[in-house]
Amino acid sequence: MTGRVTEMTEADCWEMLRRHELGRLAFREGETVQITPLNYAVQGRSIVFRTAEGSKLSAIRDHNDVAFEIDETTDEAAMSVICRGRAVELTGEDAQMVDQLRLRPWVRTVKHHVVSIEIEEISGRFFMLTKPWLHMVPN
Amino acid sequence: MTGRVTEMTEADCWEMLRRHELGRLAFREGETVQITPLNYAVQGRSIVFRTAEGSKLSAIRDHNDVAFEIDETTDEAAMSVICRGRAVELTGEDAQMVDQLRLRPWVRTVKHHVVSIEIEEISGRFFMLTKPWLHMVPN
Repeated sequence: MTGRVTEMTEADCWEMLRRHELGRLAFREGETVQITPLNYAVQGRSIVFRTAEGSKLSAIRDHNDVAFEIDETTDEAAMSVICRGRAVELTGEDAQMVDQLRLRPWVRTVKHHVVSIEIEEISGRFFMLTKPWLHMVPN
Repeated sequence: MTGRVTEMTEADCWEMLRRHELGRLAFREGETVQITPLNYAVQGRSIVFRTAEGSKLSAIRDHNDVAFEIDETTDEAAMSVICRGRAVELTGEDAQMVDQLRLRPWVRTVKHHVVSIEIEEISGRFFMLTKPWLHMVPN
């Protein structure tokens, strides 16, 4: 098994984004970088998620340029999709439309705010894994 | 099934860090935030990874305050561990000691540099998932 990296097509990236529902958001909060897992859904060319009023929402208002990642692995391969975009809070009818998506709260805490990240860049990579320690034989 | 969130103990966070080998690093590159998956190993109170000379390494030299995340999910629960720390490049014997860890390149590209993140903060959360759409019955 040889290790190699292949760029995914944009269509494959979107397909993977639509298939998953848990990703990780990286954003700035003041001078620090934060990372958080979140439950999301795809709506058109955007990903949307719910959040409570709090430090995440206020950080995103200050620095709306964010990055988002999903990945999946098997014993033999890994795939990772990375997106960049600008986060905006949805209000009124736009926020209500999100009720139609498969974006129900996984955890029953109150999350009144809906944030949408319009994807400006998307790329994905497919890695054939070598994991040499799984293939070692005693000398 | 009720949705609830539990803080993980620090011992459980470290156990989960040691059990996994793929995480996501969030770091600053100029004014932007980047996120990337990476293969890592735990060494003492640090996580270490290999990287090639490139934009990731040069960004980390400029802003060494980084965040790192791992997670796992089942149908009923999700766990996520988030770490913060300072990334430093290891050289000489410190870098060579990393050869003893289960940190072999998954992908056979040349990665001469070893980076260590000394963990200053670690926290984890355990979420009981509700996923209501999996439990819906027709009206």
